[in-house]
Amino acid sequence: MAADSDCVFCRIVAGEIPAAIVLRNEACVAFLDIAPQAEGHLLLIPAEHYPRLEEVPADVLAELGRAMPRLARALLEVTGAAGFNVLQNNGQVAGQDILHVHFHLIPRTKGDGLGYRWQPKSYPAGRADELRARFQSTLAE
Amino acid sequence: MAADSDCVFCRIVAGEIPAAIVLRNEACVAFLDIAPQAEGHLLLIPAEHYPRLEEVPADVLAELGRAMPRLARALLEVTGAAGFNVLQNNGQVAGQDILHVHFHLIPRTKGDGLGYRWQPKSYPAGRADELRARFQSTLAE
Repeated sequence: MAADSDCVFCRIVAGEIPAAIVLRNEACVAFLDIAPQAEGHLLLIPAEHYPRLEEVPADVLAELGRAMPRLARALLEVTGAAGFNVLQNNGQVAGQDILHVHFHLIPRTKGDGLGYRWQPKSYPAGRADELRARFQSTLAE
Repeated sequence: MAADSDCVFCRIVAGEIPAAIVLRNEACVAFLDIAPQAEGHLLLIPAEHYPRLEEVPADVLAELGRAMPRLARALLEVTGAAGFNVLQNNGQVAGQDILHVHFHLIPRTKGDGLGYRWQPKSYPAGRADELRARFQSTLAE
């Protein structure tokens, strides 16, 4: 997949829509989210168009991973935040808004009211083993 | 950094604490979260001990990125979920519980009540440009 002319992120990559780009290489582009959760909130995207994470070639997502620690250090230095969330949503059910893979890097400060709605549960006896077996079988295919 | 004998994730990697491991290679290990947000909730961690994302060598995080699309496809197939969140927290302020970098892969289904507490804001005129300049200067160092 190369570019989708209807995709706002592809148009940012192509320079057709302005954005505050902070990093760009062959594989990926990072820029300020125009509707930030907090000052300095960044988006890291593949330069090419892939709607969801499971569709991205491993080599491309490796390059996004490679960029993350450096972006994270810059985010902490520029914002002075004590921490940050990395968030990436796939599917409308998961809160994905734009159908071009994007990792949010969201600076966090005490009392900001952000974060994940955490609802930890537990597995009944034997269920985790069943799931492990199904994952292993699927991953072995 | 290699291993921290006080770290529960290092002990899982070493086989000292049992876990439902679904994938393992030289760089990373993936296993079922023992307190899942949803059935099939996975954790993907570097095999070596790094407390936070900004401390992980680029080559190591590249390998975690490389593993993600394959894990994501398995997660969708095993759980039948329509989508999923990838979440990674850094610092207590960001909800980090265990000080060994971990990416959550959380299956999502309609009405599950999970997701990020989204509070989009906007930049006053000129502020995004100021931040972009600071990021570019920091990233150029």
